[in-house]
Amino acid sequence: MTTDIAKYRFNHTMYRVKDPKASLHFYTEVLGMKLLEEHHMDEAKFSLYFVGYEDPQSKGLKRLERQGLLELTHNHGTENDPACAYNTGNGENGGYGHIAITVDDLDAACERFDKLGVKFIKRPTEGRMRHIAFIADPDGYRVEILKNSAV
Amino acid sequence: MTTDIAKYRFNHTMYRVKDPKASLHFYTEVLGMKLLEEHHMDEAKFSLYFVGYEDPQSKGLKRLERQGLLELTHNHGTENDPACAYNTGNGENGGYGHIAITVDDLDAACERFDKLGVKFIKRPTEGRMRHIAFIADPDGYRVEILKNSAV
Repeated sequence: MTTDIAKYRFNHTMYRVKDPKASLHFYTEVLGMKLLEEHHMDEAKFSLYFVGYEDPQSKGLKRLERQGLLELTHNHGTENDPACAYNTGNGENGGYGHIAITVDDLDAACERFDKLGVKFIKRPTEGRMRHIAFIADPDGYRVEILKNSAV
Repeated sequence: MTTDIAKYRFNHTMYRVKDPKASLHFYTEVLGMKLLEEHHMDEAKFSLYFVGYEDPQSKGLKRLERQGLLELTHNHGTENDPACAYNTGNGENGGYGHIAITVDDLDAACERFDKLGVKFIKRPTEGRMRHIAFIADPDGYRVEILKNSAV
């Protein structure tokens, strides 16, 4: 028995997605994460997709040794269900807010998102906070884009 | 202008908390994270608390260079507002699910949580998945506790 809490790790954040094709396109092609693992539970009718960045710090680490991953849960059939629209957490009584991605060059990142047709919730030029943008993923989950040289 | 998406990082996950004292106790004393930064926006009436693990990989990195942090947002006054109870994402149409913490010894971790009076949503002995537990944070957000040697 060991309870070395200093060795605990924040491995992943999970949310549900309606259409994994759209979400995987967004998180890999648009945001540059890698698809690290996928698990298909055909009997229980759901699939899990683990995505994350191949940062130098995590090189050689197994999935469960890493930090900063995203687990996308797909309940089979939601992609064809017009009634499926997830509460993405920022409405009334909403508790969940967003994930944040840090980037070297915020303007370049936003220019690229525009070219890719990404939906903006807040551009750097809007509001008071000029060092951040908010974009929406295919389900509407907020993704903060944050200049890594910001204070 | 540089758009090197390979250098993007998944810096943090944000959710709102009703009472920062209760939440900071949970994330630091119970789960073993460190309080890395706090920012108090008195005029806008909110505070941000960044917590995360001091893993060997992130040693020496600045907050914005790291991965796997948690940003707890406190809107001032919610701690004294009986009507404030956040939707933690797992009810009807709930999209947000949980964060996951990996541990070396799941049984030892759960025994310690019991001693600390932590609320369990699922013990390792319940259900089919014996390598995971789910506990609740002070707002009811789910935290998966996951054996890091699991498949």
